[in-house]
Amino acid sequence: MNRSAIAIHGGAGTILRTQMTPVLEKEYRGGLETALRIGWNILEKGGSSLDAVEAAVVSLEDFPLFNAGRGSVFTHDGEQEMDASIMDGRRLKAGCVAFVKNIKNPVHLARLVMERTEHVLLAGDGANQFAEQHHVETAPDEYFFTEHRWLQLQEAIAAGRVQLDHAGEDGDKRTGGEEESEPGSIASASSDNPKSKIQNPKSLGTVGAVACDQSGSLAAATSTGGMTNKKFGRVGDTAIIGAGTYADDTCAVSCTGHGEYFMLASTAHDVAARIKYKGLSLEDAARGAIERLTQINGEGGLIAVDSFGNVTLPFNSDGMYRGTIQQGGQIIVSIYR
Amino acid sequence: MNRSAIAIHGGAGTILRTQMTPVLEKEYRGGLETALRIGWNILEKGGSSLDAVEAAVVSLEDFPLFNAGRGSVFTHDGEQEMDASIMDGRRLKAGCVAFVKNIKNPVHLARLVMERTEHVLLAGDGANQFAEQHHVETAPDEYFFTEHRWLQLQEAIAAGRVQLDHAGEDGDKRTGGEEESEPGSIASASSDNPKSKIQNPKSLGTVGAVACDQSGSLAAATSTGGMTNKKFGRVGDTAIIGAGTYADDTCAVSCTGHGEYFMLASTAHDVAARIKYKGLSLEDAARGAIERLTQINGEGGLIAVDSFGNVTLPFNSDGMYRGTIQQGGQIIVSIYR
Repeated sequence: MNRSAIAIHGGAGTILRTQMTPVLEKEYRGGLETALRIGWNILEKGGSSLDAVEAAVVSLEDFPLFNAGRGSVFTHDGEQEMDASIMDGRRLKAGCVAFVKNIKNPVHLARLVMERTEHVLLAGDGANQFAEQHHVETAPDEYFFTEHRWLQLQEAIAAGRVQLDHAGEDGDKRTGGEEESEPGSIASASSDNPKSKIQNPKSLGTVGAVACDQSGSLAAATSTGGMTNKKFGRVGDTAIIGAGTYADDTCAVSCTGHGEYFMLASTAHDVAARIKYKGLSLEDAARGAIERLTQINGEGGLIAVDSFGNVTLPFNSDGMYRGTIQQGGQIIVSIYR
Repeated sequence: MNRSAIAIHGGAGTILRTQMTPVLEKEYRGGLETALRIGWNILEKGGSSLDAVEAAVVSLEDFPLFNAGRGSVFTHDGEQEMDASIMDGRRLKAGCVAFVKNIKNPVHLARLVMERTEHVLLAGDGANQFAEQHHVETAPDEYFFTEHRWLQLQEAIAAGRVQLDHAGEDGDKRTGGEEESEPGSIASASSDNPKSKIQNPKSLGTVGAVACDQSGSLAAATSTGGMTNKKFGRVGDTAIIGAGTYADDTCAVSCTGHGEYFMLASTAHDVAARIKYKGLSLEDAARGAIERLTQINGEGGLIAVDSFGNVTLPFNSDGMYRGTIQQGGQIIVSIYR
């Protein structure tokens, strides 16, 4: 039985039809379709789910409209720091990198961490040194620069907030100034902030892929440029196994959304735990994990696949850039609810 | 009903009676007892589990024989980079810091991240900048320096390996040279390495605390100096919610051991998931999580408490510095199996 399946996402959040132009929508759909086809071709030829998710995420990183690799958002200091992770469910191995700079494809570096080190997570300058030692392809600042991301940073600085990607008309639902909101309260942090009314018509997202190959082996990968105007070396869920990415022999999961909540709920691992310990189907387990996220005021979505080739793509935000190819080879790409 | 309970650990690993002197053992026991009493006094006075675990871990960080705060191990570059995390189960909030330098009490900084930012994890220079902005107490390099840690680094460099804490007569079970072992294989990585036969009679450990207060609220905290001779900005499980630290309204967990395996298995969250989804007792859930760790060749242990004040301290290594105080106020401190 050929159980091949792949699913990808390009981020979740406030993605509204009213803010989208036909031309832009076509571009997004094109970016998603290209990545899906690249991953699917690998699976069709008998390749591994691990190679498929890496290749799909590389394609999404190279596409400048998504917030990962080329087109990443800017930190407060005008830098582009990127996080990525990959997990091989068959071998229960993983590699992650956090706030690396000038790495053309962070997901490729994450895979090198997995294959060539005894570690799971390398961060900062150290991760860049590791990349250099392994002759990983770099690119100059100009390669990563996109004008819309630079404008997003200027808007965010002007408004004094850390901006989640996909901040739409409602703006970012979590304020950034660490002194502005009630100390660390999740409830208050997620309440609407009147300051955050700046429109972000080109809001875009984190990327990820999950796949099941012909042998039923699973893999997941996620990559992001993080949050616009972020400070203090903030690391989100994308670099964290169990939070933004997870894969074992039960399921493979890649998350997108407000990273902090995915970290607090260990969302990616939560999906696997609900399958293993509660005996739930992939769909019910993933829905349960998103309901848990909603309970704690977290916003976002996830894509998941199990070893039978089932796929599910739940989210609690207005939209999520997403797509799948399953048995039969039909491409399905969606943006809105 | 007073459900107060506290448990602490000072690391797990190859801790053998044959390598311990009576004087040294007395010192360790003293360090554990002091930390337990400090945490317990807070609980007895009606204080929160959060305050109790923070205070207990501060005490363990200040104690120079444990690998956290003062007495942290050295990186390859001769630096002392520390990771810490804290989680409040009642509010499902958490704060973590990774490879911070010259912070007297990293767990205190982790708590500030939780209380004063919208983020969960801050790393590197950014985390140090945040600390500076909040006037967090620092200490010069000399404060953190201990001779036995410096000798450990020289031994590790000479042997060309990354050294886990508690590497006893068997040495470190995971080799450090990223090219030396079969790429990333967990099985090969955990096999004995003839290179690692250097005795480390003063091997010491990561620290952590979990507590249940009179109201049944739970909290967990963990702190470490990481791995001797580590490179490339490696981040272990201590800074990762769901891996080394986790707390919700079900249980609070702090882990110690070979961090990478705890990250791959999401061990701390795994304990909570087994209780919530499988309906297991705290003890059975924690034992199950350690069995899973053993399955994937991971070595270490954990301490956990539930909202009824039950405590469990399972480990699969030769020893774990550990202690508890539960209802009645009796101090129990143990080192060996």
